[in-house]
Amino acid sequence: MKNSKKCSESHTVMTNIVLPNETNSLNNMFGGELLARMDRAAAIAASRHSQSTVVTASVNHVSFKYPIPEGGVVVVEAQVSRAFSTSMEIYCDVWLDNPITKEKIHTNEGIYTFVAVDKNNKPVSVPESEPETEQEIERYNAALRRKELSLILSGRMKPADSVELRKLFV
Amino acid sequence: MKNSKKCSESHTVMTNIVLPNETNSLNNMFGGELLARMDRAAAIAASRHSQSTVVTASVNHVSFKYPIPEGGVVVVEAQVSRAFSTSMEIYCDVWLDNPITKEKIHTNEGIYTFVAVDKNNKPVSVPESEPETEQEIERYNAALRRKELSLILSGRMKPADSVELRKLFV
Amino acid sequence: MKNSKKCSESHTVMTNIVLPNETNSLNNMFGGELLARMDRAAAIAASRHSQSTVVTASVNHVSFKYPIPEGGVVVVEAQVSRAFSTSMEIYCDVWLDNPITKEKIHTNEGIYTFVAVDKNNKPVSVPESEPETEQEIERYNAALRRKELSLILSGRMKPADSVELRKLFV
Amino acid sequence: MKNSKKCSESHTVMTNIVLPNETNSLNNMFGGELLARMDRAAAIAASRHSQSTVVTASVNHVSFKYPIPEGGVVVVEAQVSRAFSTSMEIYCDVWLDNPITKEKIHTNEGIYTFVAVDKNNKPVSVPESEPETEQEIERYNAALRRKELSLILSGRMKPADSVELRKLFV
Amino acid sequence: MKNSKKCSESHTVMTNIVLPNETNSLNNMFGGELLARMDRAAAIAASRHSQSTVVTASVNHVSFKYPIPEGGVVVVEAQVSRAFSTSMEIYCDVWLDNPITKEKIHTNEGIYTFVAVDKNNKPVSVPESEPETEQEIERYNAALRRKELSLILSGRMKPADSVELRKLFV
Amino acid sequence: MKNSKKCSESHTVMTNIVLPNETNSLNNMFGGELLARMDRAAAIAASRHSQSTVVTASVNHVSFKYPIPEGGVVVVEAQVSRAFSTSMEIYCDVWLDNPITKEKIHTNEGIYTFVAVDKNNKPVSVPESEPETEQEIERYNAALRRKELSLILSGRMKPADSVELRKLFV
Repeated sequence: MKNSKKCSESHTVMTNIVLPNETNSLNNMFGGELLARMDRAAAIAASRHSQSTVVTASVNHVSFKYPIPEGGVVVVEAQVSRAFSTSMEIYCDVWLDNPITKEKIHTNEGIYTFVAVDKNNKPVSVPESEPETEQEIERYNAALRRKELSLILSGRMKPADSVELRKLFV
Repeated sequence: MKNSKKCSESHTVMTNIVLPNETNSLNNMFGGELLARMDRAAAIAASRHSQSTVVTASVNHVSFKYPIPEGGVVVVEAQVSRAFSTSMEIYCDVWLDNPITKEKIHTNEGIYTFVAVDKNNKPVSVPESEPETEQEIERYNAALRRKELSLILSGRMKPADSVELRKLFV
Repeated sequence: MKNSKKCSESHTVMTNIVLPNETNSLNNMFGGELLARMDRAAAIAASRHSQSTVVTASVNHVSFKYPIPEGGVVVVEAQVSRAFSTSMEIYCDVWLDNPITKEKIHTNEGIYTFVAVDKNNKPVSVPESEPETEQEIERYNAALRRKELSLILSGRMKPADSVELRKLFV
Repeated sequence: MKNSKKCSESHTVMTNIVLPNETNSLNNMFGGELLARMDRAAAIAASRHSQSTVVTASVNHVSFKYPIPEGGVVVVEAQVSRAFSTSMEIYCDVWLDNPITKEKIHTNEGIYTFVAVDKNNKPVSVPESEPETEQEIERYNAALRRKELSLILSGRMKPADSVELRKLFV
Repeated sequence: MKNSKKCSESHTVMTNIVLPNETNSLNNMFGGELLARMDRAAAIAASRHSQSTVVTASVNHVSFKYPIPEGGVVVVEAQVSRAFSTSMEIYCDVWLDNPITKEKIHTNEGIYTFVAVDKNNKPVSVPESEPETEQEIERYNAALRRKELSLILSGRMKPADSVELRKLFV
Repeated sequence: MKNSKKCSESHTVMTNIVLPNETNSLNNMFGGELLARMDRAAAIAASRHSQSTVVTASVNHVSFKYPIPEGGVVVVEAQVSRAFSTSMEIYCDVWLDNPITKEKIHTNEGIYTFVAVDKNNKPVSVPESEPETEQEIERYNAALRRKELSLILSGRMKPADSVELRKLFV
């Protein structure tokens, strides 16, 4: 019987300061540097769930709505939203957390997919994931739609063959 | 009358070596580090088209199919695929270019959207873009579908209201 | 009346991977690099408590008992242990958290003192701190002994004039 | 017969500029970054004395009294103060050396302990150390008191059992 | 028969932004950081020509006439100018390319020599190089004079024994 | 009357370890990274002599004869060899200093020219330099030949007009 873990067991918090080398000419963080941070936090969460080495398979659409200034405190929270056979979807929430004003802004989120691999880079199976809170359950359910979207965007599924996604458009 | 530029005028090539600090425990490049490199190349291409400061607005879905080893030579080619009123879609192609075997692998692509801004971070208008080659024209046309998808994913358009995208599913 | 905050309100978690540039010839983390990470986590915790800019005043004696390997996941947890008039003692616990074996080792701890400052680098007063758990209370009480030790080591108090510390030796 | 080296033979000078990524929002060097630099200089000094690989065992209490600005020239001087059986105490003096005004400020000092190890991370014996100057002799003698303090702080010696340290309090 | 390649086949373009950590107190790029970037671009070009691992043998005289500001876009173009038996001369042109004003300044050039080596760091032979454009032919011919200069400067040839170089002075 | 300083007053020692990110696929230091380190040490020496901000004007021909491995201890010693009106020639000696075997290899040298500038990047005059040791006097005298070579290579002097350099060839 396949073992199983709670989604929250993979919860990973990465708090850090934005350094000058990560900022553009407006002294705000490069979008790409934030994606790199999120990738590391997500990789740790995926490794905690799968108890194996993991590699990034994809990152979904990410929007950057809010500028993050040099010296700002950025909190990335990453957690498994749903495990599949050898892959896991990881949900990253990013907060700009101003310790002086106590203002805490949800600047954006990113959803990464990781594959668990052995030392030869071959996929290995991962435990199932158990959502508990309302938000965890919602993200668990939406993960299937996103998986279909990912298959369509990478050309491995035809849009008309999708089940969950097609419902949204028709 | 609004001015206009050829897509190819923004063409940007960023060739570099994968350094140890950018690799995971399998000695392959972190997906996130690649996203950060692509963001910089794309930002330069967007700045070349708009002749202004630019900020990352979003990155579309990106898949990582091929491991990129430490010491590998990575070529990121970025170019405007389509300009909108104050934003630009930038198409990034990533190649792992082995100088010894002459093998050149298209490891993945990423599509970024940038907004042109003034010194106060306010959007400014950008020149129109003129595609010329077959590939440029194809990417120019597809950019509209991706824009709809982006609006849907960020909750600013209902799937049923899309024009281009809806055609794929119905 | 001076305001006050719970110690736990400043709690800061910094999870990250050990990168090659942070390791020595045995592929273990340099002690100094760990001290630098702890300093950043502690600075964020101090800033969260004081709601001001902070500067490191001192770090107490730190032992490194356990080698931390390249690629290892390091968790630094920092929290105010006791606030004084314009300074705060921050307690950092460092864990080497192996996501594959689930082994979690408390590799060491470090105690930093930060001063809250204004834009001209002048000290400003900070809220009082309220310990709640048994460990928080214990660390709160011990902070006074450490403050005396710090004054002695920097030559600003004679050992024989100490109150708390002297009790240990006599 | 065990060999022996003069303390001054391990003398190591590390001069460098403070880079933007090492500074806080007041544009002064993070305390932790300075500790990391000192650790590297001290590791080289310890390696020069022991002629072996070394690992950081501990760093004593360090105070930061003087802000070190971005672009400043920092000189770290490290030297063995006393060798024990398999460990060495290294004394680091830090100078902020303004090449324009010729002002040279002793910003702080740090005392690190390193252990000499073989390829399996097992301690190996180190040569004895011979202090020569007045300052070297003074630091050599004080090293014993610091060793007792270190044993007490790490819980491996009871304060009341100390010899050198106890004299200060009674 | 020894194989041969066109000079242009090794052409390498490295476009990137100047980051804060690469700049001095006037916020312009350190000359040494530019030399390091050029070395990487040149190494890739040399590897593309020789289809082998390469190591830097020397860099010729380089002048820095034009300050390159933080945030500036720097384009390094590297290409084999002439191949010798186991070494290659690589010509690097550096451009400061302002995307906003469209001003493109040739800030300087650097000429590096690389040796092709096997896994034991032993030199291996490289293909011949074929210049095509007028500039390539001119650089190809001048490379012999520079080789003599290099031999003289490293003490391996007496100035009076030079053929090409002597002509300039007599 | 113009003031004057001994060459040795500018002496600068930069000892550090070679980090993974500075090495190529043979695990030896990139030539360009060494040039960047030398530039920083030389800049500090030039600033110490001129008591002003300095910018790199040029670096002369540098050869790399000896591979410097990852983890190696590199010592860069920089010192003014000769001051001109607003510029200074700085001589850098690089040593690979193995603390374990006590082998100390002079891997290469580099000669940089710096210009002293004010806040507007305009050249300012520098003190004269006084060589004392035999080596300092020899380097002081050779600096004039190198200055001619530099003027020739940058096209500001015709080879036939040189005084010191021409003697070598005729």
